[in-house]
Formats: sequence, C-alpha cells, structure tokens
Amino acid sequence: MKRFAAVVAYDGTDFFGFQVQPNQRTVQGVIEDALFKIHKQEVRTDAAGRTDTGVHGYGQVVAFNSSLDRLSAETMKDALNANLPADVYVRKVHEVGKDFSPRFHAKRRIYHYYILNTPEPDLFKRRYTWWFPYQLDIEKMRQGAKFLIGEHDFAAFRTGKDDRTTIRTITSIRILRLKKDVILFRVEGISFLRRMVRNIVGALVRVGTESLSPETVKLILESKDRSKLPSSAPPQGLVLYKVLFNEFET
Amino acid sequence: MKRFAAVVAYDGTDFFGFQVQPNQRTVQGVIEDALFKIHKQEVRTDAAGRTDTGVHGYGQVVAFNSSLDRLSAETMKDALNANLPADVYVRKVHEVGKDFSPRFHAKRRIYHYYILNTPEPDLFKRRYTWWFPYQLDIEKMRQGAKFLIGEHDFAAFRTGKDDRTTIRTITSIRILRLKKDVILFRVEGISFLRRMVRNIVGALVRVGTESLSPETVKLILESKDRSKLPSSAPPQGLVLYKVLFNEFET
Repeated sequence: MKRFAAVVAYDGTDFFGFQVQPNQRTVQGVIEDALFKIHKQEVRTDAAGRTDTGVHGYGQVVAFNSSLDRLSAETMKDALNANLPADVYVRKVHEVGKDFSPRFHAKRRIYHYYILNTPEPDLFKRRYTWWFPYQLDIEKMRQGAKFLIGEHDFAAFRTGKDDRTTIRTITSIRILRLKKDVILFRVEGISFLRRMVRNIVGALVRVGTESLSPETVKLILESKDRSKLPSSAPPQGLVLYKVLFNEFET
Repeated sequence: MKRFAAVVAYDGTDFFGFQVQPNQRTVQGVIEDALFKIHKQEVRTDAAGRTDTGVHGYGQVVAFNSSLDRLSAETMKDALNANLPADVYVRKVHEVGKDFSPRFHAKRRIYHYYILNTPEPDLFKRRYTWWFPYQLDIEKMRQGAKFLIGEHDFAAFRTGKDDRTTIRTITSIRILRLKKDVILFRVEGISFLRRMVRNIVGALVRVGTESLSPETVKLILESKDRSKLPSSAPPQGLVLYKVLFNEFET
C-alpha cells in the first residue's frame, strides 16, 4: 500500500463545492470517480481544506491510499489527469508516509482573492474575479487588515457554526494592486473558519470605499458577533492558492 | 426610427456560434431576445462578422433599428445589458445613419488568437487559449506569415464553400510573446473567409515547431487547395477583437 498527496487545481464554477455530497457534482466526487476508474475499487480521499460552491483551487492538497504499488507518483499524476474532467487538473503527486494528513499536517494555508476594479465588467474574467467598479483606498484597507493579524477569536468573521473553537491565527494579509485594475488580497494563516476569507475581504472592501473606518474592523473582531459584519465577498474571486507542508514542496 | 450600432463582447464557450439558428443558443439569438424584451416586438440585427462555436467576441459590431426614438445610445446600452445573460456584454452603443451596415461598411477586421505556451495546462485559461506545450520558433512563424500579407486567393485557407470569391486582403499579421508564456497572433484584414484565421494559425504553428518550413506557407497558398493545409487551430483561442469603421470609434 502506498499513500499519495496530489496538488490539485480546479475551476470551481461548475462544482457544488469541494466536499463529496450525494447527487451533486463536487471536486472531491470527480477525483474519487477518477481514482475508482484507476483502481477498480473505491478510494477515499482527505483534503487540506474545503472550498464552497464557486470557489477555486490552485494548490488544494488531496491524499489517498493506493493498492497499486507499482505506480510511481508521476504515473499516478498522469493516470489521474487522463480520468479527470477539463475543470480539474492534478499539478503534482508526491508519495507520502502512511500517516500523512493534509488537514492536520498543513503548516500554512494561503488564499488569494481577486477584485477586478474597473469601470466596465470584463466577461473573460467574470468567473475568477469580483467585479467591483468603485474606487478603493488600498492604504485604508491595509490599515484595517492589520487588526486581524495574529491569534484572535474570529467568531464575527465566520459563517455557520460547525467549528468547535473560533480562535484562529492569521500570519499575514497583503493587499496588492496588480496591473492597475486587479486587486489581490493574499491571506495567509494556519487554518480558517468557514467563509472567513470572504468575510474579511467583504469587510475590507467597505473600508476601501470609506463606508467603514479601518478601526471598525477592530470593533467587529472584538464584538465576536457576526451580525455586525458587512456582507461577504462573492465566491468566484477566491482561490485556495497554496498549502504548505514540511513533507514536500507544493 | 433610430438606428444603433452596438459594440459587443461575448464569451463564446456556451454558444453555438454567433448567427441565429433555430433551437440553438446563439449570441445573435440572445441579443435579439434582449431587444424583443426592450421593444415588445421583434428586432432584427446585422453583424460585422460571424464567429463559429466556441469563438469569442470583444469588438463584434451589431446594428439594429429601434422604434424607441426617445432612447439615447447610452440608455440603449444599459437596457441591453440589463436584459442580456452574463456571457454577453454591450461595451458601447452608437447612433448611426439609416443605411449603416456593419458588414459592408467595416474598413478593417482584427482577430486575436492566443496560445498558452507552457509545459503544464492552466485551467483558468482553458476557455480562452489554445494550450500548446511544445516549443515555438516565433521568428520562423513571422517568416511564414509574411507570405500571407496582401491580396491573395486564400482558397487553401478556407473551410466550407459559402463564399463566392476567395480573394481576400490581409493587411498585417503580428506575432508577439506576451508575459513569456502567452503567444498572441494579431491578424488584421479587410474581411476573412470562414475559419481563415484558425487555418492560418494552425499552419503557422506547424512552422513554429519546424514540422513545416516558412516557405511551405507560400506553397500552400499558391496551391489553392485546402487538402494541403495542416489542421485548424481550435476555436477557444480566437477572439473577434475589433472592427474599424469610419462612422464611429469601436
């Protein structure tokens, strides 16, 4: 028995999120279908993170056991890509130890959120950006983001109630203007609550338009009350960009 | 009665080409549906060019008459966008003279063709580029392209037989490497035969891989025989980028 970790990119547009669900097209579902075709038996997978409907993956990490001991990591990559639909692509496969857990061994998770900040929409970017035509003050958003760095109770920035503790650590938030009209939020942390990145971006954008002051971000955080939170940023701008492990390079 | 010309962008992925066809989702069909909702009656449209299934538009020009004399061009633009699906966007609307024909008054048509020239595919660009992982010699492709500039009988570069004359004029072909891994073919001419741009790109790519010499392009052209032609480039890399008129700025 071998254990593999696959680094997986996917276009979330046509998926009902990452996690397997009955009668829904999910990313994990099509990966397990591909593994079934390769192994002629069911193969279960674990992943570094779940992503919601419409959210994309570039560096999702998915681990599974394989009875096909003769297959190298490289051959497994090719076999998976031969059996996956056009909107999922396995970028790398690594052989890992028997106990490897993408969820618990992840050292750091990096999400990217892209805003298209132009007066007119761009059709060709609509699936991968949030089109936001109003002016955004990057410096103000950076000031607001500073209050979120470190270990905090992020209860106010969660959606749903499935997490036992709402204490999380954000190690950095970088906000960059790329090519003049695209704004990238690069949010790095150890782990995240459900919708936490989209909720953070939603709040920071209100700071960027000056409908909230940067200090309000601190008040929202301290309130631990999500009813205080401005609305969430839409899913299509978000990508699970990279998950860092000690075991291998992603 | 007013006459308008709309500059239209569309993502060709989910359309069965531009031209109206019964029981198919076409770009012209959804534009005429939007015009029907606005006018409460059928409105027919003329366009500068047809595009095949999967081909995109950025600067397609569509003209129509409107009985809504009170609507300004700007209001017509907003009304159209309010009634169009997410994959079609009207970038501009101009009021034009009664006799304006986007097909016959077009002075110049510019197509862009994008190749993604990377060892690994990129999911997020798959709808808008041709992924071609092999090395391409840009200089050789430019040498091959030179034989196509000017007025020629392009019978060898057509697909189908619906054109009376196969003589066309190409005014320029520029081949540029953008951001290292994207190659842009910018093909400018007065008008084009069916699939002509994709057939040209298909041939030039074979020159780029050195499976054909640049001079073979000249021999193919002179043969006037499309059975001599290498296969066509796939549709998703092609965009009808701009159509130039004397009447207005596109």
